[in-house]
Amino acid sequence: MTSPFPFTAIVGQDDMKLAMILTAIDPGIGGVLVFGDRGTGKSTAVRALAALLPPIEVVEGCPVNSARHADCPDWANVSSDRIVTRPTPVIDLPLGATEDRVVGALDIERALTRGEKAFEPGLLARANRGYLYIDEANLLEDHIVDLLLDVAQSGENVVEREGLSIRHAARFVLVGSGNPEEGELRPQLLDRFGLSVDVKSPTDIDERIEVIRRRDAFERDTDAFMATWAPQDAALRDRIVAARAAIGRVESSDATLRDCAGLCLALGSDGLRGELTLLRTARALAAFEDAGAITRDHLRRVSAMALSHRLRRDPLDEAGSATRVARIVDDVLA
Amino acid sequence: MTSPFPFTAIVGQDDMKLAMILTAIDPGIGGVLVFGDRGTGKSTAVRALAALLPPIEVVEGCPVNSARHADCPDWANVSSDRIVTRPTPVIDLPLGATEDRVVGALDIERALTRGEKAFEPGLLARANRGYLYIDEANLLEDHIVDLLLDVAQSGENVVEREGLSIRHAARFVLVGSGNPEEGELRPQLLDRFGLSVDVKSPTDIDERIEVIRRRDAFERDTDAFMATWAPQDAALRDRIVAARAAIGRVESSDATLRDCAGLCLALGSDGLRGELTLLRTARALAAFEDAGAITRDHLRRVSAMALSHRLRRDPLDEAGSATRVARIVDDVLA
Amino acid sequence: MTSPFPFTAIVGQDDMKLAMILTAIDPGIGGVLVFGDRGTGKSTAVRALAALLPPIEVVEGCPVNSARHADCPDWANVSSDRIVTRPTPVIDLPLGATEDRVVGALDIERALTRGEKAFEPGLLARANRGYLYIDEANLLEDHIVDLLLDVAQSGENVVEREGLSIRHAARFVLVGSGNPEEGELRPQLLDRFGLSVDVKSPTDIDERIEVIRRRDAFERDTDAFMATWAPQDAALRDRIVAARAAIGRVESSDATLRDCAGLCLALGSDGLRGELTLLRTARALAAFEDAGAITRDHLRRVSAMALSHRLRRDPLDEAGSATRVARIVDDVLA
Amino acid sequence: MTSPFPFTAIVGQDDMKLAMILTAIDPGIGGVLVFGDRGTGKSTAVRALAALLPPIEVVEGCPVNSARHADCPDWANVSSDRIVTRPTPVIDLPLGATEDRVVGALDIERALTRGEKAFEPGLLARANRGYLYIDEANLLEDHIVDLLLDVAQSGENVVEREGLSIRHAARFVLVGSGNPEEGELRPQLLDRFGLSVDVKSPTDIDERIEVIRRRDAFERDTDAFMATWAPQDAALRDRIVAARAAIGRVESSDATLRDCAGLCLALGSDGLRGELTLLRTARALAAFEDAGAITRDHLRRVSAMALSHRLRRDPLDEAGSATRVARIVDDVLA
Amino acid sequence: MTSPFPFTAIVGQDDMKLAMILTAIDPGIGGVLVFGDRGTGKSTAVRALAALLPPIEVVEGCPVNSARHADCPDWANVSSDRIVTRPTPVIDLPLGATEDRVVGALDIERALTRGEKAFEPGLLARANRGYLYIDEANLLEDHIVDLLLDVAQSGENVVEREGLSIRHAARFVLVGSGNPEEGELRPQLLDRFGLSVDVKSPTDIDERIEVIRRRDAFERDTDAFMATWAPQDAALRDRIVAARAAIGRVESSDATLRDCAGLCLALGSDGLRGELTLLRTARALAAFEDAGAITRDHLRRVSAMALSHRLRRDPLDEAGSATRVARIVDDVLA
Amino acid sequence: MTSPFPFTAIVGQDDMKLAMILTAIDPGIGGVLVFGDRGTGKSTAVRALAALLPPIEVVEGCPVNSARHADCPDWANVSSDRIVTRPTPVIDLPLGATEDRVVGALDIERALTRGEKAFEPGLLARANRGYLYIDEANLLEDHIVDLLLDVAQSGENVVEREGLSIRHAARFVLVGSGNPEEGELRPQLLDRFGLSVDVKSPTDIDERIEVIRRRDAFERDTDAFMATWAPQDAALRDRIVAARAAIGRVESSDATLRDCAGLCLALGSDGLRGELTLLRTARALAAFEDAGAITRDHLRRVSAMALSHRLRRDPLDEAGSATRVARIVDDVLA
Repeated sequence: MTSPFPFTAIVGQDDMKLAMILTAIDPGIGGVLVFGDRGTGKSTAVRALAALLPPIEVVEGCPVNSARHADCPDWANVSSDRIVTRPTPVIDLPLGATEDRVVGALDIERALTRGEKAFEPGLLARANRGYLYIDEANLLEDHIVDLLLDVAQSGENVVEREGLSIRHAARFVLVGSGNPEEGELRPQLLDRFGLSVDVKSPTDIDERIEVIRRRDAFERDTDAFMATWAPQDAALRDRIVAARAAIGRVESSDATLRDCAGLCLALGSDGLRGELTLLRTARALAAFEDAGAITRDHLRRVSAMALSHRLRRDPLDEAGSATRVARIVDDVLA
Repeated sequence: MTSPFPFTAIVGQDDMKLAMILTAIDPGIGGVLVFGDRGTGKSTAVRALAALLPPIEVVEGCPVNSARHADCPDWANVSSDRIVTRPTPVIDLPLGATEDRVVGALDIERALTRGEKAFEPGLLARANRGYLYIDEANLLEDHIVDLLLDVAQSGENVVEREGLSIRHAARFVLVGSGNPEEGELRPQLLDRFGLSVDVKSPTDIDERIEVIRRRDAFERDTDAFMATWAPQDAALRDRIVAARAAIGRVESSDATLRDCAGLCLALGSDGLRGELTLLRTARALAAFEDAGAITRDHLRRVSAMALSHRLRRDPLDEAGSATRVARIVDDVLA
Repeated sequence: MTSPFPFTAIVGQDDMKLAMILTAIDPGIGGVLVFGDRGTGKSTAVRALAALLPPIEVVEGCPVNSARHADCPDWANVSSDRIVTRPTPVIDLPLGATEDRVVGALDIERALTRGEKAFEPGLLARANRGYLYIDEANLLEDHIVDLLLDVAQSGENVVEREGLSIRHAARFVLVGSGNPEEGELRPQLLDRFGLSVDVKSPTDIDERIEVIRRRDAFERDTDAFMATWAPQDAALRDRIVAARAAIGRVESSDATLRDCAGLCLALGSDGLRGELTLLRTARALAAFEDAGAITRDHLRRVSAMALSHRLRRDPLDEAGSATRVARIVDDVLA
Repeated sequence: MTSPFPFTAIVGQDDMKLAMILTAIDPGIGGVLVFGDRGTGKSTAVRALAALLPPIEVVEGCPVNSARHADCPDWANVSSDRIVTRPTPVIDLPLGATEDRVVGALDIERALTRGEKAFEPGLLARANRGYLYIDEANLLEDHIVDLLLDVAQSGENVVEREGLSIRHAARFVLVGSGNPEEGELRPQLLDRFGLSVDVKSPTDIDERIEVIRRRDAFERDTDAFMATWAPQDAALRDRIVAARAAIGRVESSDATLRDCAGLCLALGSDGLRGELTLLRTARALAAFEDAGAITRDHLRRVSAMALSHRLRRDPLDEAGSATRVARIVDDVLA
Repeated sequence: MTSPFPFTAIVGQDDMKLAMILTAIDPGIGGVLVFGDRGTGKSTAVRALAALLPPIEVVEGCPVNSARHADCPDWANVSSDRIVTRPTPVIDLPLGATEDRVVGALDIERALTRGEKAFEPGLLARANRGYLYIDEANLLEDHIVDLLLDVAQSGENVVEREGLSIRHAARFVLVGSGNPEEGELRPQLLDRFGLSVDVKSPTDIDERIEVIRRRDAFERDTDAFMATWAPQDAALRDRIVAARAAIGRVESSDATLRDCAGLCLALGSDGLRGELTLLRTARALAAFEDAGAITRDHLRRVSAMALSHRLRRDPLDEAGSATRVARIVDDVLA
Repeated sequence: MTSPFPFTAIVGQDDMKLAMILTAIDPGIGGVLVFGDRGTGKSTAVRALAALLPPIEVVEGCPVNSARHADCPDWANVSSDRIVTRPTPVIDLPLGATEDRVVGALDIERALTRGEKAFEPGLLARANRGYLYIDEANLLEDHIVDLLLDVAQSGENVVEREGLSIRHAARFVLVGSGNPEEGELRPQLLDRFGLSVDVKSPTDIDERIEVIRRRDAFERDTDAFMATWAPQDAALRDRIVAARAAIGRVESSDATLRDCAGLCLALGSDGLRGELTLLRTARALAAFEDAGAITRDHLRRVSAMALSHRLRRDPLDEAGSATRVARIVDDVLA
């Protein structure tokens, strides 16, 4: 309704901003989980990202934003094959949303008026090819979280309820914010997020003053503030578009694969999602920086966000998981 | 139904009255949480405030009290563009209100009689541009409280249920009363209220006698009592209207921003809502007192109501949070 | 269905009878809570009171018993403006009554047959201007008790459910009986009752024999028994009617106000409901006894019923609350 | 469906049989609670009682078995005023009966087909003027037990649900069986039953053989067995009818009232239901034995069944409650 | 769907097979409870029994398998009075069966299409005159188990729900299997089963090999295997039919009754179901073996299955209940 | 939607792959339970198996994939008798699937539009003659797991709900994956799965690199990768088809039966499912390897997957169950 705060005007919080940019370049990296206290600007950042992202081309009237008419689901009966441009969808999962609105459900109106059993798509359909944002993911009921992660990973929403048997594409990046003080996500769910970052209130007084100053300016005269920051936002958008085009050409040597596997073995992370995510995230970073191949430096810079939520707790090691990742990275990539 | 007790005839309870006045000047400060035992006049005060507030201009027939026809929601099909005057809405959330009446829901009557899927707005729509009062906020179910605070903060009510996908403006000041003996609000919820104040029964016998005398007079001859206090209520209303006009002109120096940040850092309050609220509340007080700029005195007088519910509990410090705020204020603004 | 036992034929239980009489004189005193074991005649007394009370004048067909046509609620579409006489309503809240029958609800029949969304009033509407009796208030679900006390205090029933948004007058005296062995009411609820009294089985054998004798006589030949006691019941009714007329003329000196406040401060009762109730109850007693002003003797005789349920538990003072009130009364009004 | 076992062929269990006979003479005594292990013939006895009881005269088609047309409820629209003879109703409360079938509910068929809001009476209506039997009363949900006892005591079924507001006579004797090993009834509920008796498996081998012999004979050739016992059942029925006619003439002296009150005071039973029940039960026994007045012997013989379930537990007295009653009876009626 | 394994080809498990045969001879013995681990062939045995039992004669179209037209329930409107032959019903209670399907319910189809309130019979109707099998009785919800045992014992299904008031014959033998490791049945429910037996996996290797060999042969060539065992199954069926005819002529002396009572007294079993069941089971065994009277040997051989689930736990006696029964039998019938 | 990863391109995980192949040869072996952490490729393997399996011949339009028109269920009204070829069904049980979609339910659309009570088959119908896959079987509600295993074992889906009484063939292999860290399956359920295998992340760095390399190649150019592995997948499919034809001719000597029984006795596994499963699995392996008879080597190689989930926990034996099986196998088959 009102303008979101400009993405580039956010003070600090570099990890969070980088993680969001990299998943914008390669959505296959998976979702981002943002940990932090209330009031640290998590939801501001997601709303800001929404305004920054480049638009997508979709078939007019397709409920799942398909790029080609052939990809529109049968049940939608899309008649037009005109291609139109739309903002990248960033869908908010409001508190109190019911499961039927998330996955879609029987269209009651058509059932009552026309006696037809039609499917009414939900938020997962709208989020296809975009972002789905959950504020306070830890407050959601477990079965909804399971369901969202399941769909986010398979890229497909399978509905078997109310006599319906429907499936449609649902490829989106899940961004969840979580407040560690209000309840934890189960370890098994953490692994399903591609990246994780911590955000903290700044402790430097000048940084805090800068935050208040920008925020107060934004609230008192929004239009003037937006105009000031528009060029920076546009420049970042251009870099993201360029990186998307370049990513297919970024090379990954055998040594890089060995580094990825070695890091994960050394960290003792279960499964193989760790190294695959590490590889893709480093590749997105290389593309963002216009590099031709993944280097150890790229690996180093993204290893904490790709791996720290995949560590088992080590009761003998008091250090935070980001610190433990850093230590291992220093050893392995020495 | 019956006349409310006059706001200015309330004996004592200065903090509560000031907090209510300041949010009436700048609703962006956020909600007010009033702590206190039963029988201390909390709900009397809110009902009194309702009668005091200046009227608003709204589009005739707009269910969300929009000021301009362009702001009326599509689903409301508002045909008139005539501007009418209405009292500032003060909406009561009755015990037993169901979620569908709070956020709005499918209009069953139209669904049954006309086969249309129309939205019937709820209490959040009616509260737009006014106040929403919850007596005994700690007795409400958690999911309703979460929802109310979410909407209060975003200023928008997003409904995704029963096949509806609706959003409308819902900017209101949430006033909640809480009885600390009947159960606590979660710390994470406290932070979402702009201000908090404590009310207590007076312990001075003459003050108590004055309360009984006024109350008994009011109950035995309401009309005469109202007439006696009308001029004082009108004078206060005029000051509020004047302060609203003046607030845009109140200046806040860099030193003031530094004081706000410094106070919050010293108090160790999480997030940045503390300093932003402190700044806005002080600015409203300055406007109420017709000052051209925020001074340290303004900060001093509102710091307890803006910050005391944002402190972490300190097990080594037995003092109440208002006392701790006062001590830090003395240090930082010495 | 059958005749109730005559009020004046009840053996002993003087506190309970006085409390009921005083609220019949001034319903603004608030509800009465009767504590005692089963079999002590609590529900007998309430049913007896029903038969004793003077009739009221109401608009014919008004669902909330309004005295004037202008007070009938809009939704009731009351066409007649004829004034008729009806017994004072005494409404029983039966076990198993559902919330929709208590507060009122959508009229399903009209919704189904005429497609109209009409309100069907509940027990709270019928109780307006009369009594609402809850046997075993401690067995009711908390949310119903909260709701009843809320309405009893505000005098208004606000319904926000099933797409209805309705309000109507609901001024009634709530009489609740409670068995302390079957579970307690929350302290916060106690404060909302105006008066409280204890009833006990008599321990004097002759008093017990008199109870059996009267009860057995009543059950074996009800008509003869009713005829015997009718004159006493009529005399009491006349005194109540006279007291209602006189109450507006009873004076309360500053000294009386000071006594009320002093008593409550000495007892440490929270909030200000204690002294207001004490004042009104003493005034009703003065009117009942045809006195021109409240005296210390009036205060003394009603202080236990007005204050004993408002005391905090004192772990160092083993005496019952009525005893503690009496001791303080002796001190303060010495 | 099949013939019940003859009441007079039941071996032993004299207390249970006497209690059932006395409530058949004076239903005003209240319900009977039968304690005992499974397999001790509790439900056999109730079904046997059903076949023994004299028939009643009712208005043809009246759903609540009214004796006079004027007593038929309005909602029943009973057109006939012919008086017909029917067996005394003995209604079984089957496990799994829903609350709507117990108290009555909206008649769905008429609502759907004719759009009328009619009342469909439940088991409580059918039980009027008869018996309601609950096997394993301790397995029923508490709210159903509360409801049944409430109705049993008031003699009236008040329904406030589904938009209905209905009341009808529901005077019945509640017979409940309970297995003390499967969970207890709350003490407060016990007091609402008029009488209680214990049944035990016989420990005398010849008595057990006699039970098996009769039961085996009954099962192998039911008709022959029924014919053998018909005269004894008829004789008992005649005595019950005679006692009902005589009971109004049985005298109770002041000394008897004093004995009742004295016994209850000595036993420390709460409330006054104890002595009233004792008086009525002794009167029924006197009538059954064709005596002109209640004697101390009558009191002695029924005091255990009338009082033993009303004793408070005495932790210092290990004796069962029947023993304690006997001891006190010996003292008081010495 | 597929052929069941032949009853006589079951290796070992003699107690279980005998208990099933005896209840097939006299269904009045009551249900059989089979205890044992998974994989011991409990459900195989019941399905095998189904195929073995002799057919019954029923009225064509009667939903409760009545033998005579006069016994068909009114609500069924059975028009034909032709007698047809049907296999003895063996009804499976599937996991997830809802209560309405078990007891019967309102026929929704007729209610919707014809506006009639008709009864649609459930599994209990179909099981009349046959068997009802519950696999894993301990996994059923308690209220369903209560209900089944209640009906099994009374032989009648009483339905009071959804505005229906229906009863019909439901005489069946309940066979329940239970796995003691997955939760126990309440002691009070055990008593309602007529017989109980334990089954165990064989520990003899040659017996196990024989089980595998037969099972593997059955699965690889079912038809050949069935043909091999058909004569043995037919012979057993003939013996059961003969025993049914003979059972009315089996004599039971007074000494036998005394033995039954003596055994139960010595075992301390509550109630009188123990001796009645023991008597009937011994009589069925005598009939099966073509004996003219019950002997002590018959009693000896069935006492464990008739009594062991009726013993109270004896904390000082570690022996299993079957062993304790055997020891007492040795004493009493010495 | 997208191509599954080729089955033969899965690196390592030989036990899991063998178990899946053997149940594809003989579905009568029963389901496969795959234990392992997230990210170890469990669901990848099942989806890969789906693409590998040979097609089946079914009657056109039959909802349960019947091979012959005579096997199509009555309620399906299958009109065609044409035989068509379809891929082996592999049905996914999505999280959030409701019970009615699993077992089938009343077809609401037909009920509303045509007033007919028709059955709408569920996932169990579609899975007939194929596979049913449950990811995270331990997250399913217990009653759904019970139901699935019950149907999987009996091969028949019995529906008794919503007024329906339906049965249809439902022969499928249940493949469940479970994460031991997220909650255990009850021991009694484990026994119902035919085979169980453990999967682990590889700890060899070169194996991990190979996994990443293949996965990354697959994701970057799926078509090229599929083409590379197609011949290996086809070869495996041919071997499975050949083994199915050969299995009826594989011999099992008495010595083999004795080995099976001996192994299970030595392991102390309850019931007889262990040896039967062992025999069938060994026979499938012999057929897969084109052997004429089962040898001890075949038994040795499948004993861990057939038996390890059937062991009781031995608190004195710390070794994992696969190790314990191996030790016993060494002893018994020495």
